[in-house]
Amino acid sequence: MRVGFVGLGAMGSAMAGVLLKAGHEVIAWNRTPARAQALRERGASVAGSPAEAARAGVVLSMVADDGAILEVAEGKDGIRAGLPSGGVHVSMSTLAPATVGGLVRMHREADQEFVAAPVFGRPEAAAAAKLFVACAGRPEALERVRPLLETMGQRTFNLGEDPEHAALVKLAGNFMISAAIEALGEALALVGKAGVDRRAFLELLTETLFSAPAYRTYGQVLLEGRFSPPGFRLPLGAKDNRLLLEAGERLRVPLPLASLVRDRILAALSRGWGERDWATFARIAAEDAGEGLAAQGRG
Amino acid sequence: MRVGFVGLGAMGSAMAGVLLKAGHEVIAWNRTPARAQALRERGASVAGSPAEAARAGVVLSMVADDGAILEVAEGKDGIRAGLPSGGVHVSMSTLAPATVGGLVRMHREADQEFVAAPVFGRPEAAAAAKLFVACAGRPEALERVRPLLETMGQRTFNLGEDPEHAALVKLAGNFMISAAIEALGEALALVGKAGVDRRAFLELLTETLFSAPAYRTYGQVLLEGRFSPPGFRLPLGAKDNRLLLEAGERLRVPLPLASLVRDRILAALSRGWGERDWATFARIAAEDAGEGLAAQGRG
Amino acid sequence: MRVGFVGLGAMGSAMAGVLLKAGHEVIAWNRTPARAQALRERGASVAGSPAEAARAGVVLSMVADDGAILEVAEGKDGIRAGLPSGGVHVSMSTLAPATVGGLVRMHREADQEFVAAPVFGRPEAAAAAKLFVACAGRPEALERVRPLLETMGQRTFNLGEDPEHAALVKLAGNFMISAAIEALGEALALVGKAGVDRRAFLELLTETLFSAPAYRTYGQVLLEGRFSPPGFRLPLGAKDNRLLLEAGERLRVPLPLASLVRDRILAALSRGWGERDWATFARIAAEDAGEGLAAQGRG
Amino acid sequence: MRVGFVGLGAMGSAMAGVLLKAGHEVIAWNRTPARAQALRERGASVAGSPAEAARAGVVLSMVADDGAILEVAEGKDGIRAGLPSGGVHVSMSTLAPATVGGLVRMHREADQEFVAAPVFGRPEAAAAAKLFVACAGRPEALERVRPLLETMGQRTFNLGEDPEHAALVKLAGNFMISAAIEALGEALALVGKAGVDRRAFLELLTETLFSAPAYRTYGQVLLEGRFSPPGFRLPLGAKDNRLLLEAGERLRVPLPLASLVRDRILAALSRGWGERDWATFARIAAEDAGEGLAAQGRG
Repeated sequence: MRVGFVGLGAMGSAMAGVLLKAGHEVIAWNRTPARAQALRERGASVAGSPAEAARAGVVLSMVADDGAILEVAEGKDGIRAGLPSGGVHVSMSTLAPATVGGLVRMHREADQEFVAAPVFGRPEAAAAAKLFVACAGRPEALERVRPLLETMGQRTFNLGEDPEHAALVKLAGNFMISAAIEALGEALALVGKAGVDRRAFLELLTETLFSAPAYRTYGQVLLEGRFSPPGFRLPLGAKDNRLLLEAGERLRVPLPLASLVRDRILAALSRGWGERDWATFARIAAEDAGEGLAAQGRG
Repeated sequence: MRVGFVGLGAMGSAMAGVLLKAGHEVIAWNRTPARAQALRERGASVAGSPAEAARAGVVLSMVADDGAILEVAEGKDGIRAGLPSGGVHVSMSTLAPATVGGLVRMHREADQEFVAAPVFGRPEAAAAAKLFVACAGRPEALERVRPLLETMGQRTFNLGEDPEHAALVKLAGNFMISAAIEALGEALALVGKAGVDRRAFLELLTETLFSAPAYRTYGQVLLEGRFSPPGFRLPLGAKDNRLLLEAGERLRVPLPLASLVRDRILAALSRGWGERDWATFARIAAEDAGEGLAAQGRG
Repeated sequence: MRVGFVGLGAMGSAMAGVLLKAGHEVIAWNRTPARAQALRERGASVAGSPAEAARAGVVLSMVADDGAILEVAEGKDGIRAGLPSGGVHVSMSTLAPATVGGLVRMHREADQEFVAAPVFGRPEAAAAAKLFVACAGRPEALERVRPLLETMGQRTFNLGEDPEHAALVKLAGNFMISAAIEALGEALALVGKAGVDRRAFLELLTETLFSAPAYRTYGQVLLEGRFSPPGFRLPLGAKDNRLLLEAGERLRVPLPLASLVRDRILAALSRGWGERDWATFARIAAEDAGEGLAAQGRG
Repeated sequence: MRVGFVGLGAMGSAMAGVLLKAGHEVIAWNRTPARAQALRERGASVAGSPAEAARAGVVLSMVADDGAILEVAEGKDGIRAGLPSGGVHVSMSTLAPATVGGLVRMHREADQEFVAAPVFGRPEAAAAAKLFVACAGRPEALERVRPLLETMGQRTFNLGEDPEHAALVKLAGNFMISAAIEALGEALALVGKAGVDRRAFLELLTETLFSAPAYRTYGQVLLEGRFSPPGFRLPLGAKDNRLLLEAGERLRVPLPLASLVRDRILAALSRGWGERDWATFARIAAEDAGEGLAAQGRG
């Protein structure tokens, strides 16, 4: 299939690479052109603007945040300007549901389709075509882009017709991960301080009731204190947490566990940990248990 | 092996039944004799006191709480009184680490061995020999009772020499479950209020990052609001949460997520939900989001 | 002094009335003209636009929120357009520090002065000239408007040169009040459920360690459950809480007590309490203690 | 009046001294006799046991905790053993309501009266007869000891007939103080990080809405970071917080703000701050905002 691809960060490049490998024709655009060049070597065409990429009729976008999606979607060089009537914009970024709602209206007014298809997974998973995709949009539009989503993901979940729902589900999924990180952080601080072998504890968890990727991945990260290089940087986690809390506020849903994570993240940022993996916020629980304080001459 | 078994509640009966079925010789005791009679029909002998059951040389106990373990372990009819020198008491209940520490000392003074081997799993899992066992104690003692533990559990985890560690790990494991329940409760309240298909959301979680028993079991319970009959009653969850927080206090480890769960549980008990499954505390998140209020004429 | 006054809600009208009574010449503007007419009868002139009011050289604004201040300050009919070079805009509303920062820059570019002077107090206090004023701005500008502030307030506090500081202090002050409300709510729920005379408890507090207006006012409101008519509506409290949390986020300061209040407010809004006084959020603590549930047939 | 006095710590000595100065005849007892000797020089008689002190017919006790009150009240040398039938035991310590309930029953069975009269105030206030007293007990008993309470306190509050109510009110009062400390800690961390003059902020609070002793005292302590010597040691604050949470648990009243304080206190204890004033737990908010981290080479 001929498809535009806007946004070639670590995730976007990997995803576009998977499409190329599967034989799709990719017209790529990135704000900083160097990354587009790299993809050209793998067989992509390079577009001069998001609009040009969108002329393919189906265009995927994978950008950093709400500001970036508006930048590439609106304006005379934006996706809307280039996408033909009846064309589909598949947004795979993690965005505020409210922003997604605005994009839906914008494309509808231009007789275009909009599908939200945010993904779960890190760049390695993207490169291995192992992403999980949460998609929502009008059935015909979904049907049309399904082969692309199935190429990039190991599994695609249909959340219905409203793209805002997919956006919210993605935020809720990231919240679930943050809750698991906090729980692991507290439990490890407790058993560790008591002298329990933390590795044995973690093994018990992840081979029984918590035998799931979220616990295996982050349990290992916490056990080893391996926060660099980051798989997902703390400020990105802060952003997703903020979007979730904002969604809760709009819907009037209190989310005390998300509020707890918020305060952990801010405490971590205040400690200068902004370049680390977001799981680093679980270190606050360890510090509050006194870990590492002796080394600072405070114990 | 000839083995005493003290405490024949739903869990204990199932576990003792598994031992019988595997060919072990079980001498059983229960505070209310009716349950021991039921087990007699399945081949057990019935002891007149915990001391008598303990004379087998290896005795397992599975009782409701810290008060009950002291009742069956101490005194002239207690396990200590009957267990031969060099005998092993394997405590499989969920107990405070401090209580376990006391039992260790008590048995050591009587030249007896004490092994803590609390289990994860509900009565159905116990009956199917699918428990997970977290054990700790002196290596020779562990080695001696290993066949019994492996008969009752699908997997046994060795937490080292200190029985208190196994006790703490059990509490920490239950805390992890409660954290997952709270996270599910908040996420379901949020996406549900937004109109997302909650079943689809849950399916996405449990088939991807959270493909683990804790999420599958409790996700289903929350989705269906199926809190009766209870798999694990709320007051028992309250007790384990309290033991965890007390352990945190003794070790000076703040546990804000466990504190949040504590307040949820109390709010649920105040609503008269004491006979329900402990996952019912996740309903507080739903009520705080306004669910079910219209029906009460308050919306 | 000749002074413009923009924004004649309950607070603004009372404050402008105090200025008139003290002999100042007031040129008033309000978005809905009826309120300006009411003030005309008390001696004010009525301006056709914020710009016209600002031509007085000193203009006070007292509007609902960040959106409203931008509406009256910017544009060709706005305060900036009418204020002479060297004139002073005194903003008395509760605003985000970031918004105040923007106003400072906007006026500076127009060679105008900007003073932030948010106030503590309800409309009755405003009418009685009993407000407390937290002001910040350049010393000469503050000096110039001091007589006006002292006319309206019983006490003026100088927070220095940076108007953003006054804005933040106002938000922090409202946070302190919300913390007192939550503390009162929890304590009253506890002692009340135990059967303690809540009035005697409150008297003890407010005549000893907590003999302060915040506790007397809100203690009485909670004791009597008198949330209507509201002195300060819940959605306004929600807004100030959000602005505080946003300030905390920008500064990377975790505020768990403010997060707790946030979740209480959302739970109260979900219960349909949006028209009540903001102290109503303390009722969540009472409901979580089981108060009022029997009446709903749930006890 | 002839009165026994049991427990001569910093508080008890000051209180007994006030009674002596007012002309009462005091028969004093303390576990470590040196303190009793000091009081003898001020005119007291020294008893050989709590029982002997209790023979005066009215006996006041002021001890450290629940364990200590049982030690001095029970047993053959205890208050109960010495107090004549119809005599009154006035307990002024901060105790768990459940413990007070037990004392009520114990004294009732011995035909003795029990009055709970816990006090608010630090040793300086005790020495200056400026305590606030929260008392509860049978009217005749209260009437009989009223002159003593009024000698020691600047104000006495009658909480009714049930001594447990006075005990709970005392815990709730300390909780209110801890809530104010946390609120001050968060607010000061926020405005301080923004560059606001924290002294000016605090002055604004304590001269307006928060013009109360709790805010003036602890505001000053926090502003100056003056946690040593302690007015009230952190472990004592931890104990009162625990008693409050336990009371909440028995009554099934969630207390999330008290839970937050709990976690703050544990984090402070983990940092080795056990010898400081309990207000030191507000430093956790400051640390989480990044204060003091640069000095540790982490900023």
